[in-house]
Amino acid sequence: MSEYTVLGKSVPRVDALEKVTGAAQYGGDVHLPGMLHGKFIRSKHAHAKILNIDTSEAEKLPGVRAIITQDDVESGRRVFATDKVLYLGEPIAAVAATDPDVAEEAADLVKIEYEVLPAVQDVMEAIQPEAPHLHSDDTKDGPARRVLRTELRKLERDDSQDHSARIAELNAQMEELADEVYYNVSAETHSDAGDVEQGFAESDLVVEDTYVIPRVHQTYMEPHVSVADVESTGKVTVWASTQGPFAIRSGIAGTLGIPLNQINVIATTMGGGFGGRFGVALTHVPAVLLSQKTGRPVKIQMTREEEFTDGRPAPGCVIKLKTGVKNDGTILAREGLAFWDSGSVSGASIGSTIRLRGVYKFPHLKVDAYGVYTNKSGTAAYRAPGTPQVAFAGESQLDDIARKLNLDPVEFRLKNMRVEGDPVPAGPNEPKVGYKETLQAVADAVDWKNRTKGPNQGWGVAIGDWTNGCGPGGMFVSIHEDGSARIFHGSMDITGTDTALAQIVAEILTLPYDEVTISRGDTNSAPYATGSGGSVVTFTMGNTAKLAAEDTRRRLLELAAERLNTDVESLELKDGQVSTIVADPPKSIGFGELAAYSLSTTGGPIVGKGSFARKPSTPALAAQIAKVEIDPETGRIKVLKMASSQDVGFAINPMAVEGQIEGGTVQGYAWATMEEMQYDEGGNVNPGFVDYRVPTTADLPTVQSVIVEVEAPDGPFGAKGVGEPPITPTLATMANAVADAVDIRITELPMKPEKVVDALHGNGK
Amino acid sequence: MSEYTVLGKSVPRVDALEKVTGAAQYGGDVHLPGMLHGKFIRSKHAHAKILNIDTSEAEKLPGVRAIITQDDVESGRRVFATDKVLYLGEPIAAVAATDPDVAEEAADLVKIEYEVLPAVQDVMEAIQPEAPHLHSDDTKDGPARRVLRTELRKLERDDSQDHSARIAELNAQMEELADEVYYNVSAETHSDAGDVEQGFAESDLVVEDTYVIPRVHQTYMEPHVSVADVESTGKVTVWASTQGPFAIRSGIAGTLGIPLNQINVIATTMGGGFGGRFGVALTHVPAVLLSQKTGRPVKIQMTREEEFTDGRPAPGCVIKLKTGVKNDGTILAREGLAFWDSGSVSGASIGSTIRLRGVYKFPHLKVDAYGVYTNKSGTAAYRAPGTPQVAFAGESQLDDIARKLNLDPVEFRLKNMRVEGDPVPAGPNEPKVGYKETLQAVADAVDWKNRTKGPNQGWGVAIGDWTNGCGPGGMFVSIHEDGSARIFHGSMDITGTDTALAQIVAEILTLPYDEVTISRGDTNSAPYATGSGGSVVTFTMGNTAKLAAEDTRRRLLELAAERLNTDVESLELKDGQVSTIVADPPKSIGFGELAAYSLSTTGGPIVGKGSFARKPSTPALAAQIAKVEIDPETGRIKVLKMASSQDVGFAINPMAVEGQIEGGTVQGYAWATMEEMQYDEGGNVNPGFVDYRVPTTADLPTVQSVIVEVEAPDGPFGAKGVGEPPITPTLATMANAVADAVDIRITELPMKPEKVVDALHGNGK
Repeated sequence: MSEYTVLGKSVPRVDALEKVTGAAQYGGDVHLPGMLHGKFIRSKHAHAKILNIDTSEAEKLPGVRAIITQDDVESGRRVFATDKVLYLGEPIAAVAATDPDVAEEAADLVKIEYEVLPAVQDVMEAIQPEAPHLHSDDTKDGPARRVLRTELRKLERDDSQDHSARIAELNAQMEELADEVYYNVSAETHSDAGDVEQGFAESDLVVEDTYVIPRVHQTYMEPHVSVADVESTGKVTVWASTQGPFAIRSGIAGTLGIPLNQINVIATTMGGGFGGRFGVALTHVPAVLLSQKTGRPVKIQMTREEEFTDGRPAPGCVIKLKTGVKNDGTILAREGLAFWDSGSVSGASIGSTIRLRGVYKFPHLKVDAYGVYTNKSGTAAYRAPGTPQVAFAGESQLDDIARKLNLDPVEFRLKNMRVEGDPVPAGPNEPKVGYKETLQAVADAVDWKNRTKGPNQGWGVAIGDWTNGCGPGGMFVSIHEDGSARIFHGSMDITGTDTALAQIVAEILTLPYDEVTISRGDTNSAPYATGSGGSVVTFTMGNTAKLAAEDTRRRLLELAAERLNTDVESLELKDGQVSTIVADPPKSIGFGELAAYSLSTTGGPIVGKGSFARKPSTPALAAQIAKVEIDPETGRIKVLKMASSQDVGFAINPMAVEGQIEGGTVQGYAWATMEEMQYDEGGNVNPGFVDYRVPTTADLPTVQSVIVEVEAPDGPFGAKGVGEPPITPTLATMANAVADAVDIRITELPMKPEKVVDALHGNGK
Repeated sequence: MSEYTVLGKSVPRVDALEKVTGAAQYGGDVHLPGMLHGKFIRSKHAHAKILNIDTSEAEKLPGVRAIITQDDVESGRRVFATDKVLYLGEPIAAVAATDPDVAEEAADLVKIEYEVLPAVQDVMEAIQPEAPHLHSDDTKDGPARRVLRTELRKLERDDSQDHSARIAELNAQMEELADEVYYNVSAETHSDAGDVEQGFAESDLVVEDTYVIPRVHQTYMEPHVSVADVESTGKVTVWASTQGPFAIRSGIAGTLGIPLNQINVIATTMGGGFGGRFGVALTHVPAVLLSQKTGRPVKIQMTREEEFTDGRPAPGCVIKLKTGVKNDGTILAREGLAFWDSGSVSGASIGSTIRLRGVYKFPHLKVDAYGVYTNKSGTAAYRAPGTPQVAFAGESQLDDIARKLNLDPVEFRLKNMRVEGDPVPAGPNEPKVGYKETLQAVADAVDWKNRTKGPNQGWGVAIGDWTNGCGPGGMFVSIHEDGSARIFHGSMDITGTDTALAQIVAEILTLPYDEVTISRGDTNSAPYATGSGGSVVTFTMGNTAKLAAEDTRRRLLELAAERLNTDVESLELKDGQVSTIVADPPKSIGFGELAAYSLSTTGGPIVGKGSFARKPSTPALAAQIAKVEIDPETGRIKVLKMASSQDVGFAINPMAVEGQIEGGTVQGYAWATMEEMQYDEGGNVNPGFVDYRVPTTADLPTVQSVIVEVEAPDGPFGAKGVGEPPITPTLATMANAVADAVDIRITELPMKPEKVVDALHGNGK
């Protein structure tokens, strides 16, 4: 029996009614009087010089109100391509017209003269010297040259003795490693712990492989949309479909040089985000520019094709991975080298490469990662950014090792897992975690020990780790004259977080769940709230809600003490009233009466405040086991069973948590088996849901969710962020199940039927 | 030299730019997709039985989406007339259609069958037994019968001895006072102090007169407008032009039985209010009903004609007044009997009748007031509700007395004024007040002692007293990453109050004025705020702003102490930074840096909270002196000089205060000389600005504003509410000036040219 009344219960979402009735207002539902519609003039080439932009014909079209190019960006910050385009679909100009069709027609009338340049789409080609350069100053040393150069620099700085011999030697060695000069590098990160060379030397078995993961799109249902309205006073209002309205505000301010306090961002209901709805470049900034120029509100709504060519999807990558183990299954060393396909701008997920260490005790670890420019659009976050890719490599390789050493893959993992107090390679020591409990839970759920399989059937297991972020937030809780409570805050709800916040406040105030309503403000009204990414909201805003509700409770108790002529200590909140703890004589007073009373006290209306920013997060694990059956004729992978466990700390709303586990697992399944953005030299060739396969309900496996609760000390009521972890293991889970079924190791995703058939043929089947 | 940097300065209004550029969004600017337009079917008679309502023809009109009558009001609360209409223009039904013209056409097609009843428009006729009765149970005793009945009831309850003789006597006396049974009475109030009969007996001079003040309209520029949008979930959003969004929320909830937390009221920029923009009956409730029925957003916007026939203007009244004085000018007694024209519903301003006592030491006072039903629309507040009417009677009569006793009207008033500690007749003792200072200031401003006048010229002086209200409010102040501050609150700005709040916060945070922005929330987001009436906002929300800014300052100091490694006591806010008080070593840190830093502290974003409800208000006086010249041919009154002083406690923004003094004085001038709503038995006959005269710029006198500052102990920085006082003396000021010019005492307003001419003829000129 739970100690709680509202927490831990699967109450319906606060926004359920408005979502199912269609009352929720999305960005596309914003219509302002006199509103214009914006469209982009986009590059027709993946890489080309722009020789001329001729807008004269387009400007003549009736209904066209403005055409803007980079010349209209007073701040000088790059919004449109000017001298060069770097990918197919890159915006070169934008038009605002009275009607979307007119805007599109005008966009077609803008004449761009190009000089087409050779393009590069493959990261391994892009790092070669002969590859076309997208940006200057983008040449970096590979890992081995980097070690040499580090020593070289040190010696060159040391005047105490003569190093010339060693310097010459180092220079010669670097010369030999000339092919380790990488071109088109946008970023790099390097971590190490112990000595991997020693680790591999001590290993009984060293396995090495290269893993290739494709770029995939977040495929949120709602394309990007903005409505910008710039007043004649210069004040900017933007209706934005975004995960982070405060980030949009500062993004617009920074890009266009507008004072922060002149910008108001009103975030509309979101049709999915998954990390892809943070930036201002796609629609928000162009809409503001068009509204500034026309003096009219301007809406820009991307099409699905534009989402594919100019979206900011998850980066693909190539990971070279090497792991050494003892014959008893003790893991000793791992070395990873990752090349992340950043597209045309420096990318985001490269930092996740360190998660190649998993939750295992690697005494020796070396991780090097490079972001690489290619002629694609930039990338952005996608549910646990970078980690599904990394876990695919790491967990696939562990599975190979288990198979080679004939170890049970669950036992093998359990044996090597870190526990509380263990050192984390290249990190601080492990706090209290539920790694083993979570893997054991999913194994128990499928009766792993007694698993059976038929022909072409196999079982795969994998894990993925993640730590929710933490960010700043403020919140207010008011008590109304009718005794109900209202939450006011500014964080976005993608996954049901508002419901969790309402549950927390209801629990603390002893109110029925439906007596707590929640309201979201714009950036002009709500206190600062961190963006809804990194599984941060329930952790951060949940803690904030707790503080705000406790502040409200304090005020209720004080007012009641005043009214009931007693002291605060003798009172408690119970069933939406303040009552004497000892019922002799029993006295109580309703919140509504206290709210009315408060309006005539010096303290005024009952408003509790919560303000919060940082507490340590606790890592969480997701573990999955899939049973599959392969059709050797068609290569089709059928999922017979998919169990997905996750340490959620505490499930504030089990139904919502299960929804996240199912959603993440399913997205991982799709990435593993069907999703990929495909490119040829000209750019993306499958920009739409006809050619870019996403699963339909007919494709989807039934996901058995297993909730594990190992309390996070600083989470609200022990809760951890739950949105991201469940996607992390699935790519590997699926590959490992396929390997177990038909003894083929697919290292390049997605495992499309034709690829499976090819692999079977390669394996002689 | 002021000790303040931003306070006490005439900074421009925070909304100046958006007001002058037209960017401000009024109710009429709200356009929602799919929005319908509502129109009323209104009574064509001032008093009639409704025999039948036939909507069938109207319903057939293409574009009509719904027609509603009282039958559609599930709560049963009266929204529309059913069996009887009580005034011309009373709503009987409402129609929603796709277009305002279609709605109007449909309204014309609704056929109402009436049985016309006799109507009564004059209060003195309405109290007679033969007058038509508007409501039942509306018969009350007049003042003398009331005294007799009080004794009678007491004797009837006393069984200790035989009172039959006295009872018979009392009954006989009451019989004799049969004409003191008043009919159509809606409300009554009675106050007394001392013994007026004794006071009059001791007086050397007793003056008695009857004063008649017409009903006037608030004539706000923006007619009433609502847009209601009821979602399929039942959630109600109302865009309302209102002085009190929280009152509108509870008004809609109460009238229609909708839970409070299902209603959100978004208040739009207001085109004037003056007290007339509080109720829900005119447009808000009907718009919600039409949206509920159609499932579409519905806008209702009143025309100017509807504002006159169905608005809620200021009540007219008839005041019988009697004042007794000694020959040395010592006032001894006053007796007043007022009949307030409530229209068809019980009215609001009757309580102000007690202000017949002015700010004078009346040892003996008796005030009786009755609200009287007539066949007009109801009334509402209008700038110091009831007080201009009452001050007109009281100050005219004092002027008469001064003339009769040959006393200087300024000296006469100063002699009788109450000072700190004096008993207030029928009230508590006087706090620290600036009555004498205020009257003396205006006298000094016009050099009263040395005043001169030509033929047909005269000087008039009068005063009016008022005490600002106090109500509950909450407010938040946030510090942004750029170091600027934002205020968030829910109270409406009619008069520049937002500017005062921004000044208070800027002062306390030592920020430049333009680094403080202010934002208003709807009832879903902002903490509760009292309605903007009763000159309450600067007092209440100013105190709230002070608390919120002080809370913000506290947090800034704490954060700075943490960052600068020192203690809070050694720090101060200065020029938008936190600095060490002793500059050895000098250290300081900007707010922007602290705001950024706060986002990584456990305390989170910098948000200060202020919550406030009650502190004692302090009375304020307005005093005015006018010099006029009368054209004896045309009766036109030309104002040669108009000086207006006011005790404002502390002028947070002198320019804004002067604006209020000028505006109030000018409205009083218009009421005195031209404004009146005219009625015949059929109803209002001047429903528009062609026949209802309001002053144009050509009519307006130049007002010389004189600011007096006698600190209010509990006002923010000593400030009092300033909006209402300046209208209170002007009616009397003008009448007194006319009396001084041409020796006629006009007791019935307005002093239209023809009335002045008539009076001059009556006076033999």
